[in-house]
Amino acid sequence: MLLLLHGAAKPQRIVTFESSDTAFFGVRAVASTKYNLCDLPNLAWGKEDDFVLDFGIHMVGTLSFTLSSVGEHMDSPCRLRLIFGESPLDVTMGMEGVKTWISTAWLPDEIINIDICPERVELQRRHAFRYLRIQVIDTSSKFKVAFSDVVCECISAISQEVEVDAISFGDAGNDSNKDDELLRAIDRVSIMTLRDCMQTVFEDGPRRDRRMWLGDLRLQALVNYATLKDFGLVKRCLFMFAAVARDDESLPACLFEKPTLSASSDYLLEYDALFAAIVYDYVAASGDIDSGRVLWSTVLSCLRRPLEYVDPSTKAFDKTRGEDWQFLDWAPGVDTSAGSHGLVLYCLKAAQKLARLLRVGFPHEHMITSMNIAAAEAFLHDGLIVSGPKKQVSYACASWLVLSEALPRSTARAALLKTLSHEEAVKPLTPYAWHHVCDALLVAGCQDECLDIVRSYWGGMIRAGADTFWEAYDPADPLASPYGDVRNNSFCHAWSCTPSLMLRTQLLDKVGGKVTGKMTMGQLDDQWVKQTTRTNSA
Amino acid sequence: MLLLLHGAAKPQRIVTFESSDTAFFGVRAVASTKYNLCDLPNLAWGKEDDFVLDFGIHMVGTLSFTLSSVGEHMDSPCRLRLIFGESPLDVTMGMEGVKTWISTAWLPDEIINIDICPERVELQRRHAFRYLRIQVIDTSSKFKVAFSDVVCECISAISQEVEVDAISFGDAGNDSNKDDELLRAIDRVSIMTLRDCMQTVFEDGPRRDRRMWLGDLRLQALVNYATLKDFGLVKRCLFMFAAVARDDESLPACLFEKPTLSASSDYLLEYDALFAAIVYDYVAASGDIDSGRVLWSTVLSCLRRPLEYVDPSTKAFDKTRGEDWQFLDWAPGVDTSAGSHGLVLYCLKAAQKLARLLRVGFPHEHMITSMNIAAAEAFLHDGLIVSGPKKQVSYACASWLVLSEALPRSTARAALLKTLSHEEAVKPLTPYAWHHVCDALLVAGCQDECLDIVRSYWGGMIRAGADTFWEAYDPADPLASPYGDVRNNSFCHAWSCTPSLMLRTQLLDKVGGKVTGKMTMGQLDDQWVKQTTRTNSA
Repeated sequence: MLLLLHGAAKPQRIVTFESSDTAFFGVRAVASTKYNLCDLPNLAWGKEDDFVLDFGIHMVGTLSFTLSSVGEHMDSPCRLRLIFGESPLDVTMGMEGVKTWISTAWLPDEIINIDICPERVELQRRHAFRYLRIQVIDTSSKFKVAFSDVVCECISAISQEVEVDAISFGDAGNDSNKDDELLRAIDRVSIMTLRDCMQTVFEDGPRRDRRMWLGDLRLQALVNYATLKDFGLVKRCLFMFAAVARDDESLPACLFEKPTLSASSDYLLEYDALFAAIVYDYVAASGDIDSGRVLWSTVLSCLRRPLEYVDPSTKAFDKTRGEDWQFLDWAPGVDTSAGSHGLVLYCLKAAQKLARLLRVGFPHEHMITSMNIAAAEAFLHDGLIVSGPKKQVSYACASWLVLSEALPRSTARAALLKTLSHEEAVKPLTPYAWHHVCDALLVAGCQDECLDIVRSYWGGMIRAGADTFWEAYDPADPLASPYGDVRNNSFCHAWSCTPSLMLRTQLLDKVGGKVTGKMTMGQLDDQWVKQTTRTNSA
Repeated sequence: MLLLLHGAAKPQRIVTFESSDTAFFGVRAVASTKYNLCDLPNLAWGKEDDFVLDFGIHMVGTLSFTLSSVGEHMDSPCRLRLIFGESPLDVTMGMEGVKTWISTAWLPDEIINIDICPERVELQRRHAFRYLRIQVIDTSSKFKVAFSDVVCECISAISQEVEVDAISFGDAGNDSNKDDELLRAIDRVSIMTLRDCMQTVFEDGPRRDRRMWLGDLRLQALVNYATLKDFGLVKRCLFMFAAVARDDESLPACLFEKPTLSASSDYLLEYDALFAAIVYDYVAASGDIDSGRVLWSTVLSCLRRPLEYVDPSTKAFDKTRGEDWQFLDWAPGVDTSAGSHGLVLYCLKAAQKLARLLRVGFPHEHMITSMNIAAAEAFLHDGLIVSGPKKQVSYACASWLVLSEALPRSTARAALLKTLSHEEAVKPLTPYAWHHVCDALLVAGCQDECLDIVRSYWGGMIRAGADTFWEAYDPADPLASPYGDVRNNSFCHAWSCTPSLMLRTQLLDKVGGKVTGKMTMGQLDDQWVKQTTRTNSA
């Protein structure tokens, strides 16, 4: 598995952030009218000076620059603070006073001291960023510093030469030009998000937490098959998970590749089951039957623990049968039983299809039949999918029960649409859950409704200035965070990269999409940089 | 010029600092009763934990340690702050809110982020310290960190095998045991101060500002001849200064070795002149006549600009004849005319002695005669040495006029002692100026008074816990600083290392000193570490 340095990216402009009532984050990056990037090597910065470089695009890599001293002499060290911003908030809010319940060591700033100039400063750590804020903490009265040859050596499993289908969107009818531009942007940002998360494994986010989770991996792999088509990386990841099975043969929710391959202590019931679906998807997409055979025993064992939550008499999933962490979304208070019933059934069916591809016996045929029946009996109430003793209605549960295809399509469709218009239904908090809503809508034949969500939800991030899609997005709250402080959010998060999958497969005709040829990742980057830095006329 | 890594130093104990009314800094390092150093690899530290390692001795070098994670998983980076303390204040006051008019980039802290453990963390920058405070800014709830194999690779031009004369002090009469211990400590700390400042050049201080100044170089070279005897390093430094002469052939007050050898823009009239004395001292101590001949033209030219301050009619030095920075001490408001008259005359006489050694002609014979006469005429008033229109009395001026030997010895002695008992005399602020007071006392035959100052002033630093002597020491104010904040003081500063010179040469008989053999720097270090960490019985 080669990690490619896919070229040296350079800053595109020096920016300032101006207040804006219409900008999602309340600030908008504009080209500095005071400083021009081409003058950077000649600009001298002293104590408490501060500026922001815009690289024009989100990237993952290692930063280096040449620091020179300007003035009489460099008669003291120079202390710099570098803040690597994925979002405008990272570089405008400062890094002080962050209240978060996860580690503040994730915050994207570095303080460095340089003793002698000129020096080629090469940061060893990998960073994920578009904006680089440089704060000169101090020089001395005798010298200032200048920056030149600022470069990010970009890192990804995907080289700039990798090609994806070029798609033309926009023959969908009314207001076609606008659609064209928005959908093209959504598609590109999806691919760029995926690319930046593809490292030696499929990481959830290259800034945080740089680790592979099964639920995220499933979505990444699916988008990958529709775009970048790196089957080798998926195969590597599947075998890594199989290698770290737990004592009871269940799979950890995530794993650590370094310092040595090891399972995380995190266990998520649903992520365990999803391994079966990921293997099926992989074999179906790649045709790699041999790997499927090797992984088959792990597929069977990953279903065992989730199936213990199925009530032996009712055949309905009952979340109270165990203590394992159950996860469909970060939205607080979701009762997961109905959704997990759907998810486990979905995974059983994936395993059933895999067995057919591999021509091996499948031991859960009867369970699929039983759970199909139990789905309606246990969770369908007044045409709505409900979960738990309080008959909670949630987007997450409705989506997964629909995805399991346990209900007749018309019933599923009606229940799903009724949920979406239900005022008290628990809404998703994450793009992860929103994807399953969209996917369920497609399964239920509701292409228009799916496209509306793609346009409004992912389109909302585009309008807010996203270069990559985010871990969490609440259209009503730019400071929303699952971790207590938005500065610890990940703004390039793979579980949000699925629009490309939908737009390039099930929605392609709907949006009037046509494959017009091929384009390389390098071309895609170049075009996006041009689009995001149009104001660079200073 | 080899820079030697003279071995790996390890921490001696984990310390805490307890309040103490009798301690100069108000705190005293004591061995931790909670943590034992030998348990360090097994101690786990999490968010906001904080501890101090005591290396037992001041050292200059690069730090490395192995960081391991303890607990379930290292699922986030670890952020550490390291504070390299020369004094207890560095590691107890914190590094926030420093108000200093020089660069805060000198402050001895580093913030580092470690992504994956175990990792051998190797800091690239050189630090000068005895205490290492480690603050764990954050880990995560899933892991803590442990430290092992903490090592400082020590750096100096002087290896641990270099030998110095072992001296026994203490046959001086009353209370001999006490004297013995104090003088031995003063002598050792002087040598250790010098050693830590001897790098590729004679640095003023290895923490700040790591640069060679002519006034400091003169004292370092003299102590070096009496102790470590590294003639090669002095020669290198003399030729470096000669190489960076200014356009008018005067010499800069200091120079920069990196990135390329260059003169500082700082010019100090007195430092320029002192070059002549340094070359004379070097040739006299080393016998290296050849180098003296090469440097002779620079010796003549370094006197030119200082001599322009000598009034052509009175032959007295007049500070108002030019705008150059004049420096005898950091004490504010010193009128330097009388002292600079003495200093320039002193340097002329050194050049005269050098000319005789080199057997070359000397053009300033007549000037020496004239300035000898002018010394008393211009600056002797009522038996006191006075300077400027207000007839200011200062230790610094009295010392340098005595050092010039322009006055009859009895006159000089009386004037000097009268100055020392004069209530309004401007006192020295720095060990640099105190040294010249002591040296003048020796020239005037006042060994007892000199020894009193060595005992009280340098002994005061020993009693305050010094492992190396300081840039500035005000017995009345532990927070005194020439730079506004004591945290930017240098606590290993070569201009304070002269007691060894005095104790091993002019004062040797007086203090009952006898050379008893040789000891290596390694032995000296070991003995000092034992002495400073006696409380390590935890």
